[in-house]
Amino acid sequence: MSKGKLFVISGPSGSGKSTLLAEVLEKLENNFFSVSATTRPPRPGETDGVSYYFKSPAEFKKMIENGEFLEYAEYAGNYYGTPAAPIIKQLENGKDIFLDIEVQGALQVRSKMPEAVLIFAVPPSFSVLEKRLRNRSTESERIIMMRLEAARIEYKKASEYDYVVITDKPGDAANEIISIVKAEKCRFAERKYLLDEAFDRA
Amino acid sequence: MSKGKLFVISGPSGSGKSTLLAEVLEKLENNFFSVSATTRPPRPGETDGVSYYFKSPAEFKKMIENGEFLEYAEYAGNYYGTPAAPIIKQLENGKDIFLDIEVQGALQVRSKMPEAVLIFAVPPSFSVLEKRLRNRSTESERIIMMRLEAARIEYKKASEYDYVVITDKPGDAANEIISIVKAEKCRFAERKYLLDEAFDRA
Repeated sequence: MSKGKLFVISGPSGSGKSTLLAEVLEKLENNFFSVSATTRPPRPGETDGVSYYFKSPAEFKKMIENGEFLEYAEYAGNYYGTPAAPIIKQLENGKDIFLDIEVQGALQVRSKMPEAVLIFAVPPSFSVLEKRLRNRSTESERIIMMRLEAARIEYKKASEYDYVVITDKPGDAANEIISIVKAEKCRFAERKYLLDEAFDRA
Repeated sequence: MSKGKLFVISGPSGSGKSTLLAEVLEKLENNFFSVSATTRPPRPGETDGVSYYFKSPAEFKKMIENGEFLEYAEYAGNYYGTPAAPIIKQLENGKDIFLDIEVQGALQVRSKMPEAVLIFAVPPSFSVLEKRLRNRSTESERIIMMRLEAARIEYKKASEYDYVVITDKPGDAANEIISIVKAEKCRFAERKYLLDEAFDRA
């Protein structure tokens, strides 16, 4: 059996990433969605252990000290981090893993696991992004402005990513990610063992 | 409009490439299948200008001298070559191009056009390949043995390719190539202009 592959999805808050990822995970088999830890308070409808592991700042700090994170970052005043142990275990089990993390974290993952595949999800325009953030209306104007500024900064890092998907019609973006996942499973390095099986005794 | 992308498919004779490519081209839009020139005699059912441009050795030599080929190679005693002009024109027109060429030729294309995507198509095993070649039974035992030896040599070059597809069930391999094409259209370099449109005036 071949090892699983790590897919990292980033994109501005309001890019529609969560909806997109839910659709992708429903359509793909044999995957594992890594749940992040965060010090951000839950939004309405979010469940501990499903949306995030919600941690106090003190608990989060302890996890950093214990080296429990594959990556962690501060973003808009809160900490977000990816626990490493479940990821390593599930990759060994042959599961593909999807991480929904910010740009700083994604680049930490790339430096630790260069074989990770980085996908940047963006809305079709900046004005659409602004509209989505305002329609969500769970956050103060100050936070919205911070998120927009963060989006401008993140956009400048998009060139570090392997792929870009535009979250215009969600179905299209999900199909693109599914194509990316399928294509990445056809990479020479992934298929080498099959080739060797077919030809080595020829 | 973005430029088209060049996809090169190689694989041993008998790997099922032609059937596979026909299926891919039928399912994809906006593409252009480059027809090769060859000095090999037509097989039953092959049409000049569709399967190949069938050329005499003297005609082929003249095309080489005129620098008309993107790549050319000798294979099993015959010459095969890809006329460059139609490829360059169709890429500019935004068409994706599919080349069905041997390994030597594919590596010439890569050195001239590093952005080309190389896909290696192989049967599930060497014994399946042998069976397919014998069942085709249009060729002498000597040619079959030459093709099998060529397959052994080509297999050693598979590591130069970006992707490997296994032509076990043809439908599966075609879907894999379609995923590869769709994924390659999501590459950062391909999407940069969309990102810039979305964010540059933000």
